[in-house]
Amino acid sequence: MPIIEVHLMQGRSNEQKRAMCREVTKAVVETLGVDKDQVRILIHHLTPEHFSVGGVTWSESAQQSDVKNKGD
Amino acid sequence: MPIIEVHLMQGRSNEQKRAMCREVTKAVVETLGVDKDQVRILIHHLTPEHFSVGGVTWSESAQQSDVKNKGD
Amino acid sequence: MPIIEVHLMQGRSNEQKRAMCREVTKAVVETLGVDKDQVRILIHHLTPEHFSVGGVTWSESAQQSDVKNKGD
Amino acid sequence: MPIIEVHLMQGRSNEQKRAMCREVTKAVVETLGVDKDQVRILIHHLTPEHFSVGGVTWSESAQQSDVKNKGD
Amino acid sequence: MPIIEVHLMQGRSNEQKRAMCREVTKAVVETLGVDKDQVRILIHHLTPEHFSVGGVTWSESAQQSDVKNKGD
Amino acid sequence: MPIIEVHLMQGRSNEQKRAMCREVTKAVVETLGVDKDQVRILIHHLTPEHFSVGGVTWSESAQQSDVKNKGD
Repeated sequence: MPIIEVHLMQGRSNEQKRAMCREVTKAVVETLGVDKDQVRILIHHLTPEHFSVGGVTWSESAQQSDVKNKGD
Repeated sequence: MPIIEVHLMQGRSNEQKRAMCREVTKAVVETLGVDKDQVRILIHHLTPEHFSVGGVTWSESAQQSDVKNKGD
Repeated sequence: MPIIEVHLMQGRSNEQKRAMCREVTKAVVETLGVDKDQVRILIHHLTPEHFSVGGVTWSESAQQSDVKNKGD
Repeated sequence: MPIIEVHLMQGRSNEQKRAMCREVTKAVVETLGVDKDQVRILIHHLTPEHFSVGGVTWSESAQQSDVKNKGD
Repeated sequence: MPIIEVHLMQGRSNEQKRAMCREVTKAVVETLGVDKDQVRILIHHLTPEHFSVGGVTWSESAQQSDVKNKGD
Repeated sequence: MPIIEVHLMQGRSNEQKRAMCREVTKAVVETLGVDKDQVRILIHHLTPEHFSVGGVTWSESAQQSDVKNKGD
């Protein structure tokens, strides 16, 4: 504990995801005082068809110009 | 808020999934009175090997005739 | 299927939550063509201390004026 | 009910996953006294890049010798 | 791994939940061949207002007679 | 995005949880390059009866001496 699930749009490099796991773990250890080895992170990938903000999927938004930075 | 996770058997078209996101968002806005732009939907795909009803996976059920409409 | 998890800030009435379950189920049935009895919805309540947008918990935001409608 | 989500490292055979669904369902039925047909299991696959223990992803650990059995 | 989330209607005794954790863990160890100490189970409680089958919450169903054993 | 769920044993102070949200958000922004306002964190509390490691719930472990730091 804690067990952390990160829902993430696909497309990041392994380097980015490794850095994220490292830094999020560090943040949790420092603020909650837990043992580092007990922090588990699970990443769940999403595709642009599988994430929707305001009823519009990411892939639909990408076809329009100004909607893009709404829910990244 | 709300943040909505939909666990769904794979195989629907993008059109169906887009319509689902649009109509579920509308239903949430109308019944809970939240701002449309705050409704986020995440779709998690399942394969027939990764969903089980009564201890029998979907793929096993598909090999038998009458079990199919149990847990769709 | 589908199985739907709704993460929701506490404070809605039972009437609102019942209406939400009813209308979301209807939306899913109509757009995905599934059997109504197979749609399951799980509501997970959140408290203002347990939801954060941009690194600021809901309860902290509530103490400030203009941040409130950011992530409802 | 209950609805059970199993986060699992990829790589098991269909036979193993089917046996897991069957035996976990049996365990739940016997200990909680629920109707077998109501037990639903969802398996979420993880890849070695998407699971981290102690801030180190599974794929990084696999490149080192002694870390491996820490969080399997 | 695996990490298991169990969504459960409230009302079971601690004895029942402990037995469930013990037997589910045993089932996972035997079928997947994982180390017992790596199996983590998280129980998420639901109330009758927070679980819906076919668009009808558990608490509404309880007020009617024959719907009750549909989704327990 | 990303949307982050943190499963946490109850008992931390609001100050600790606020610091955790702040620092985890910062870690995600820095490593993934996302807009801060898009990072949402949901905390799910667990009780000692609702978390199990190796088939033994937290509350059972607390009654024994040396098991305690296994899965914190």
